[in-house]
Formats: sequence, structure tokens, C-alpha cells
Amino acid sequence: MPQTVIDAIAQEVTKAAATLNRYPDREFVELRELLAAYLGHGLNRENIWAANGSNEVLQQILQAFGGPGRSILSFDPTYSMYPLLASGTDTRYISGVRAADFTLSAESAAAQVYEHKPNIVFLCSPNNPTGTALTLEVIESVYEAASELNAMVIVDEAYAEFSLASTKSALTLLPGRQRLIVTRTMSKAFGLAGARVGYLAAAPEVTDAIRLVRLPYHLSAVTQATAIAALKNIDLLLAQVEEIKSQRDRIVSTLKELGLKPSVSDSNFVFFGGLEDPHAIWQGLLDSGIIIRDNGIPGTLRVTAGTEAETTAFLERLTQLLAA
Amino acid sequence: MPQTVIDAIAQEVTKAAATLNRYPDREFVELRELLAAYLGHGLNRENIWAANGSNEVLQQILQAFGGPGRSILSFDPTYSMYPLLASGTDTRYISGVRAADFTLSAESAAAQVYEHKPNIVFLCSPNNPTGTALTLEVIESVYEAASELNAMVIVDEAYAEFSLASTKSALTLLPGRQRLIVTRTMSKAFGLAGARVGYLAAAPEVTDAIRLVRLPYHLSAVTQATAIAALKNIDLLLAQVEEIKSQRDRIVSTLKELGLKPSVSDSNFVFFGGLEDPHAIWQGLLDSGIIIRDNGIPGTLRVTAGTEAETTAFLERLTQLLAA
Repeated sequence: MPQTVIDAIAQEVTKAAATLNRYPDREFVELRELLAAYLGHGLNRENIWAANGSNEVLQQILQAFGGPGRSILSFDPTYSMYPLLASGTDTRYISGVRAADFTLSAESAAAQVYEHKPNIVFLCSPNNPTGTALTLEVIESVYEAASELNAMVIVDEAYAEFSLASTKSALTLLPGRQRLIVTRTMSKAFGLAGARVGYLAAAPEVTDAIRLVRLPYHLSAVTQATAIAALKNIDLLLAQVEEIKSQRDRIVSTLKELGLKPSVSDSNFVFFGGLEDPHAIWQGLLDSGIIIRDNGIPGTLRVTAGTEAETTAFLERLTQLLAA
Repeated sequence: MPQTVIDAIAQEVTKAAATLNRYPDREFVELRELLAAYLGHGLNRENIWAANGSNEVLQQILQAFGGPGRSILSFDPTYSMYPLLASGTDTRYISGVRAADFTLSAESAAAQVYEHKPNIVFLCSPNNPTGTALTLEVIESVYEAASELNAMVIVDEAYAEFSLASTKSALTLLPGRQRLIVTRTMSKAFGLAGARVGYLAAAPEVTDAIRLVRLPYHLSAVTQATAIAALKNIDLLLAQVEEIKSQRDRIVSTLKELGLKPSVSDSNFVFFGGLEDPHAIWQGLLDSGIIIRDNGIPGTLRVTAGTEAETTAFLERLTQLLAA
């Protein structure tokens, strides 16, 4: 955390603390305006909604558009919270499929929408845990199929700020698509996981629908103050994104040199296959004080890019373990 | 807000801000320990749960114990969020009844539990909007009936700190009653509505059940820091409770002198009947810059006790309006 941002948060929260005896701004107007300005794309505060982490944003979407008798389609492997959020809102979760290399084509995705007729489609892009973003062609194709079914399409862009330069955000598709929702978070690229602020951009009709299910005053005055202070210092917070991306790219190229199979990564982590015994590698790294993620997908592991020193430690230890 | 508390919150949040890049303590251990110490009654952190406002606590209780095919019984008029929270979790809301004076006897409450066979009973004590607390006899009677049905009993004590000296908390009933949950909030007596922190005390099995439905990391690091700082200065925050209670008692006695019918109040507001045209009174007060609550219950209004000057302004204007 940059000291300037810590100071700004302290200052904004101190200001908010003086009136903590009052309920917070239920419409969190200033926060929505700053989020709209950050996203750009001609969005304004009417397009923005926020909640305590993007998990709560997704839960509110399911409360508004899912529920008993309704279903959600996503494409596994994907973010592990989707089926849990579906279960928690009594929405049936339909597990769609990807190609063997975990990619998803426009044709396959649309065909699965037509086959399963869900009420909601969740697209994770860049995908967690595989790291690769979807092309706009895939999202447009899913949207077209979903629209015929009056279904909602959610593109979860939690890791969007880490995308490769050639990857385009689904925000560019929002104009004219009232059933499209793009979700984001301040936890990843902003480095504010502790603040628990997720948000979305969509048509004003969508944010109005979510107003019907959110709990009154769900965003505290201190959460709003923290997020506002952070957004006023957005350049400082995003300064590390380029460094993380360069470490991420270094991991991808080194893993290839080691004979492993990393996926294309638009995120701050690298998903890689080609391992005979992922658990042994995971344990060997852990024994050296390096924790990475075993998502239980055969032959694969996932590693998050850290500082240059952390990345070096990971790559050196992995090289040793593979040689042993 | 006392300046000492503002400073304490600023200091604790500044400390938390330095590590906002990390996810918060998912188990909010320090906060639970401080809440347990505040409540007393031999409770420890295993008995405590917290969320973003007591509305979220109640929603999590419904997510864990309610849902499609299940029902909740409460006794109207009561807290207006109960049916909304039930609807949001697809739990059927059963509207129980009270006596004409809005009291609820042990016999009537238990009989309604046996009649409706709910999965959950919500008891608001002190009751919002009528202000009166339930006796422990009523709660024990409901608990006994509910236990036979394997139902949960929630006593919502949002306003407990304002209770009359003779009123006992349902916390005293917790030992040996695993189906009893007592909910509280930091919004009312603590004067921290902007911080959005509600909590509950119950058997450890209950908090474990809620762990299954809460979203991961639902309580942000800044929310935890704010609540921790406040609890470390609890005497300062509660210092105004006695003054509010004395203004509340003054409102009750003055309303009686004016020929109106105030309910017994264990809360920081007074519910009163005996009005021919409540809306005209409400409008007349509003026109003088005084806003009170019209809960839509015929012949009644509800007023919150404020400072001595605010209370005087209300009582003087009300006296004029009644005379006019």
C-alpha cells in the first residue's frame, strides 16, 4: 500500500467518522461517480452499482434475476463461487463445458445457451482459474443467444486490469445491450482486497432491479470513504499493475522453457499444465514457504505473480523440483 | 460522535489501511472477542457472529434456517424488514397477531407457534415500532413451543440498551437453549449507524451454520477496525444512553399529560396513539422542521428521543398542533 493512499484513506475515514451516528448515503453517489469516471466508456453513475466485494454484487444479481425455478449457466472450470452463490440463492447451476485446452469458442458457448436455456449466463473473463480472457466475439454470441431467451449475461471482469494489450473489455459492448452486466472489483488490480468493494456497470434498469433486493444501507460510510479515497489516488494504486504483468509474462515464458504448458494469461496469475504430479510440486513449494493454488484440475496448478523477488524464488524452486 | 472515538477509529483504520492489499480476517476474531466481552453473560467468541448491519445478520439467519418451503412467524406490527427479508430468501412470512394494545402474552404467542408451525420465529424486543420489550416469560414460552417443532427463535434486541431497568435481556436465556439467537446492533445505542455492524449471540452450532451461508470475507478490514476502535471506547459511546432514556421518559409523561396514549417504551423512541388525524400532526411537525415516523398504524405516530432541545421543540410544537 502506497503511503499516500494510506494517508488519504485515513483522512477520508476520519471525516466520515465524525458523522458515523448517521446512516450512510444509501445511494453512495460520490462513489458511483468516481467508479463511472474510472471505467470511462461514457458511463455515468446511473450505470454503476457497488457492494461489499464482487461476491455480494454477484449474489445481488442472483437475488434479482435468479432464484427458485431459475437457472444459471457457466463454463467450468471457472470461478468456484458461482455454484455456491447459485446454491445460496436456490438458483440451479448448469455446468457448461470448455474445449480440452479450457478455451471457449463463440459457437460452443452459444450452442450451450440454446441447449440449456438458462435465465442467467456467467462469463468469467479473464477466466479464473485458467487466466485467459474471452474475445468480444464470444460475449456477443452468448448475448445474442441469451437475448432470445430473455436471459441476463454477466461478464465477470475481476482481473480485467491485468489483460494483455490486445484484449478488449466487455464494457465496450454495453451500449444498446440492456441484459449485459460487467462486474469488477477493487480487490485485485487496485490491491484493496481488505476493503471489500466490488461493483458493476450496466443499464440503469439493471441497477434499479438490484435496488429491490439489496439491503438498505448495505455499504457503510467507512467502506464508501475508503473506496473514495482510493479512487482519488487511482494512478498510485494501479502503478504496480505493469510490474505484475511483466512478472506474469516472465512466469509464462519461463514455464514454457521448462516444458510446461501455461495458458495465455490476461490476469495476475498463470495457470499451467504438463505436470505429472501437481500435488508433489505444490507440497515441495509449500515446504519452501511458497504457496500457490491447486484447483484440483488434473495435471495443473495456478501461481499468482508477485514481486520480482517472489517470482524468482518460485521459478528457481520449481526448476529444482521438476529436475528432482 | 465523541472526538476521542473519532480519533480512535482514525488510528485503527490507518493501521488497517497499511495492509488493505490483503484479505481481511475472515473470522474477525478480535471483533468477536470484544463483542463477547461487551455482552458478558459468560459468552465467548464462539458464541458471536457479526455482519454488515443487523439486517445482514437476519438475512444470513434466514439463508441458513429459512428458504423455499420454510416459514417464519412474527407478530405484527413489528420491524418492517422481516417480511422483506423473508421474501428475499423465499421464506414464507406468517403475520402473527398482538392484543389491541400491541402487547403479546406468553399464551397467545405460544398458541400461534403451535397453530402455524413455523421454522423460525422472530421476536422483536423491544419491539419496533411499538417500543415495548417482551418479558422473559413470553420468550421462554415461545421457545418451548418452537423447540417441539425444531424451530429457531430469534430475539431481535436492536434497542436493548435503552430498556427500562426492570427489563431483562434474552441473553440470560441462552445457556442450554441451542435454538435461541439474540441479535444486536452497533447502530442504535452505540450511535454507529454509519458503520453498519450488527451481531448475534447464540450457541457455537448456530454460528457454524451461518458460516455455511455467509460470503467469504463479508466483513471488511475497515469495518472490523472501526468496530474494534468503537468497542475499546464503549463507555464514551454509551454515555449518551442515559440522557436519551431520560428524554424518552419525559416524552412518555408529557404525552400522557396531553391526553395521548404512549406505549411503555424500552427503546429510544415512543409509539403513541390517541390521535384523530396522525397525518395532519406529522405534516404539521414536518412543516416546522421536525420529522417523526408515521408507520401507517391508525391513530398512531412514533417519535425518536433526541437531545433535550430537540425533544423540547417536538413537545412544544405537538402541544400547539393538538390545541389548534
